[in-house]
Parts: sequence; structure tokens; C-alpha cells
Amino acid sequence: MPDEQSLTEKLFRGEPRAVARAITKVENGAHGAAALMKEVFPRTGNALIIGITGSPGAGKSSLVDKLALFYREQGEKIGIICIDPSSPFSGGAILGDRIRMQTLGLDKNVFIRSMATRGNLGGLARATVDAVAILDAAGFDKIIVETVGVGQDEVEIVKTADVSVVVLVPGMGDDIQAIKAGIMEIGDVFVINKADREGVLRTEKELETLLSLAHRPDFWHSPIIKTVAPESKGIEDLSKAIESYYEFQKKGENLERRTAIAKWRMLELLQEKLLADVLSRSGTGEKLDRLAQEIAEKRNNPYSAVEEILK
Amino acid sequence: MPDEQSLTEKLFRGEPRAVARAITKVENGAHGAAALMKEVFPRTGNALIIGITGSPGAGKSSLVDKLALFYREQGEKIGIICIDPSSPFSGGAILGDRIRMQTLGLDKNVFIRSMATRGNLGGLARATVDAVAILDAAGFDKIIVETVGVGQDEVEIVKTADVSVVVLVPGMGDDIQAIKAGIMEIGDVFVINKADREGVLRTEKELETLLSLAHRPDFWHSPIIKTVAPESKGIEDLSKAIESYYEFQKKGENLERRTAIAKWRMLELLQEKLLADVLSRSGTGEKLDRLAQEIAEKRNNPYSAVEEILK
Repeated sequence: MPDEQSLTEKLFRGEPRAVARAITKVENGAHGAAALMKEVFPRTGNALIIGITGSPGAGKSSLVDKLALFYREQGEKIGIICIDPSSPFSGGAILGDRIRMQTLGLDKNVFIRSMATRGNLGGLARATVDAVAILDAAGFDKIIVETVGVGQDEVEIVKTADVSVVVLVPGMGDDIQAIKAGIMEIGDVFVINKADREGVLRTEKELETLLSLAHRPDFWHSPIIKTVAPESKGIEDLSKAIESYYEFQKKGENLERRTAIAKWRMLELLQEKLLADVLSRSGTGEKLDRLAQEIAEKRNNPYSAVEEILK
Repeated sequence: MPDEQSLTEKLFRGEPRAVARAITKVENGAHGAAALMKEVFPRTGNALIIGITGSPGAGKSSLVDKLALFYREQGEKIGIICIDPSSPFSGGAILGDRIRMQTLGLDKNVFIRSMATRGNLGGLARATVDAVAILDAAGFDKIIVETVGVGQDEVEIVKTADVSVVVLVPGMGDDIQAIKAGIMEIGDVFVINKADREGVLRTEKELETLLSLAHRPDFWHSPIIKTVAPESKGIEDLSKAIESYYEFQKKGENLERRTAIAKWRMLELLQEKLLADVLSRSGTGEKLDRLAQEIAEKRNNPYSAVEEILK
């Protein structure tokens, strides 16, 4: 396919339109996505992939913007992927374009993309990981994956980054132990953003205590960086902390972690493909609709329905 | 199987141990889970299922505890399921037992369970929905599904409840628009918790504006309830708001929504079953490990690997 060939050629030259088209392709699971990704993979491995997560309200988006600006000033090309939760019963991305588009979006060396699930079939995690690989192959130096929420999918995605950054704010209230426990294990670098607020010392102390209790298999001691994103305070420190974990983990073989990630990617892809194969059989769509209605009317149950589909 | 028979008998009598065993069964996707659920489904439909979501730090857990206590005082049996995000690369539930266990856990008419993903295979949403059905069949009057995070999976799960409650706190900062946009569409009832804090009026006004812009297909006007959970303030109002949406949505046919949920459950189950079938083929485990290592060493890519598994 000459069209496909020119797409990958343009992609490897870093043309924004080709990057966007390629990502749309893997997002939709379109025909040809597998062929594209097989070409993309051998070209990956040059970018530093940074995952950023934390509660909504922690100021992640402005932190990401400032970090991206900092990298831009070093002359680097930046990709930003924003994971956007949305309900499967209504569908559609919610945030889409944001204020950032006004400050960063016009810069040709910054590529920004929001990704959201479409419909019920999942695949967001797989699509995100593929989009990161595309940006990597297209020559972006730093790729930042930012999550809006802090749920299961988001944690899975952030864990596939080279360096995972967890963003907290001072005095988050009575659930702070719970949050920290939930995301403690994934943080290679911790940020206390809005560090001009009251309670920053207490939050820092609590975090230090929790970190001292955690046992990382690699014996890395996760640093705590204080930032005030709107004033760009602490952004350089953050970039240094990210770099230093990146160097640290490159020293270790780290093959075990990459194998675990590879396995997870295969299982995601396998599941997606198996379901797509069943759904593409003729008549399955109608059968599914009929069975769903039967279940809704309590004349059937999901377990028996699935057996009928597979018969 | 006489053992199975006695399990469902005990389950339908509401014996806590049988309930716990049944949930473990569906959580592990154990042999016999499908047979169990086929017996459970015809017995469901009596409980009111309440989904509670919102950012970490919003005080959801104490709100849930107070609401459960309120229902207990009305003589009702309460089931609480807590969705617990955890990393697939380390596995295991994180919160497990919490302070609540000390206040509610000894009450025989309160059943509390944390659910977390185990490993990479997903299925948390399906397992949670099955656990809710089990509690329903076991005679619990109110079932509260509480999420720790506010990600994709959590939103999906909460949407399957009869009434979805979204919890906010005053003055969550610059991401508040984003949060609200993300969960706006799923809230049948909104709670501003910690309503003794500064900024409550502003948050209420903002929320009202957003709600007036939202168009719900059912024309329901989502109420905003102010609570201070530790002091049990606003809990009765919350229970009334929940009840009134429940009555409202029962009047409408609501078949469309239930059909959408049924379809989603089928697809989840189908995906899980298809993957389990492939993985149970002899030799697949070893093949998967070998391919994962090849990918980690960049000698292969996930797409080609999946094709090899399916060959």
C-alpha cells in the first residue's frame, strides 16, 4: 500500500499530521493498525517517557505545561498525551482542547493529544501505549503521559512510563492516607504542588514517613519535589529528579519490569483481538442487542447469554 | 453438587460467610462461578444500589459510613463494596480493612468488602457487578458501591448503580472544571462534603451553573446536598435525595439504560472468557513468557507476538 508507506515515512520524519493520523489509526483499531505498529516498534526506545498522575485538583495540567515549556527551552521536542476518562454510556472526550492549547498548541515541536475510551470495548491502555510508541518513533525526545483521573486504567498506563511522577497537594484531608497508599508504589518521583499553601510541611512529613516504610525492590529512594506550577517554581528540580531516576533505572537491567509490561500489552491486545473477531462474525451484533434486551427485562442473564454467543 | 446447592441456599438466607464465599468465587472467576450467577440473577432486583464516586480527598469513605449508619437505624441491611485501585504490576488490595471496620464491621447486618484487580486480566468491573447481584440476592436492602479513584473503570462501575452520587469538596482548585466535566454526566445526586469549609457557596454556584448547562435525556434535575460527614450533617437529606431519584427513575421505563448496561456486562464477560480459553490451552503460558521476554529485549513486537499466540 503506497499510502501506508508514505504515512510511515512522514511519521518517521516527525510530520505532525502523519503522527496525528497514525494515532487515530491505533485509537480506532483500524485495519492496518497492526501493520503500522510492526513498523513503528523497531524505531522506538529513544524517548524518555514520563507518566504523571495524581488526584484531580492537584494541578497536574499546569505542572505538565510548565515542564513541557522547560524542555522546550532546552530545544527538545515534546509529546503530551492526556488520558481522559469518560463514561462508556455516553462516550466522547470531555476535556479535548484546554487552556494549554493556547500556550503550547501553536508550537510545532509540541504535540498534544487527548485520548478517551470510545464505547465499551476498552483498549484505552493499549491505544495509549501505542500512541507513545508512535511519538517515540517520530523523534519526540520527551513524552509526557498525563492522567485526569487516578483509577485503575490510569495507574496501569502510568506504570508503563520510564519514570512515574505522582502529584499531591498540601492538606488533602482525611483520605490522604488512602490516596498515598494507592499510588505510593508507582511513584518514582513525588511532587507536592501548590507548595505555597498551608500544610505543605505536614504533607511532606507524612509522605516521608510513608516512603520510609515502603520497600522498593530496586532500593530507589523516591525524592519529594515541591513546586508552584503557575510560578514555574521547582520545575527544574523536577526535571532533574526525573532525569536522575531515568539514569538510575537504566543502570539496573530492569528487564523484569519491561517483561511484565510486555506481557500486559500482549494480554490487552489479545483480549481486544479475540473480542473483535467474535463481534465481526455475521449476525453477532443483532444477537448481542437481542440478548441485552432479554437481560434488561430479566428474561435472561449475562452468563447464559455469553454461552449462547459463543455457541 | 451438594456443596454448591448448600452455598446458594445459605446465600439466599443471607448468611455472611456464604456471601463472602460467593463473592470470592466470582472475583477469582473460579469454576462454578457461572453456575452460581445463573442461580443468583433471578433473585435480584430488590435492593437499591447506590454508587458513590468523587476525587480522593473528598471524604467519601466517612460519608459512606454515616449513610450506612443512617440506614442501619432504619432497620435495613447494608452491603458496602469498596473499589480499590491497585497496580497490576504488584497486585493486591491496598486499603483492605479501614477505620470503618471498627465501627460498622461488627454489625451482622452490614457486609463490607473491598475489591481490587488481581493481575493483569481486568474483570474488576464484571466482578463488582456480580458481587452486587450476590448481595442483592442475599437480601441486602441497600448496596453502596464506593470507589477510591475516579478513573474509567470506577465511572463504568458507578454507572451501573440505580442512583449515582458524586462527591465534591469546596474549593478544589484549578482542575475543578475538569473534574466536574468528567463526572457531571454521571451524577444523579451531587454532594458538597466538608460543607463547613470556606468556599462552599462558590463551589455550589459553579456546580449549579454547570448543571444548568447539562442536558439530561430524562430531564432529571440533580439536587446538590451539603454535608459534613463527621458530624452526620446532611446525611438524612442525602438519603432523601437518593430515594427521590430512585422513585423518579422507576417511573420512567429506563429500559434503554438497562439494556446498555446489560450489553456492557456481556462484552466484559465475553472478553474475559475468550482470553481465559486461549490462556488455558496447553503451552500458552510458556509461549507468553517467551514472547514477553522477546518484546522486552526488542527482538519482537506485541502485534506479531499476539498473531503467533493465535496461530
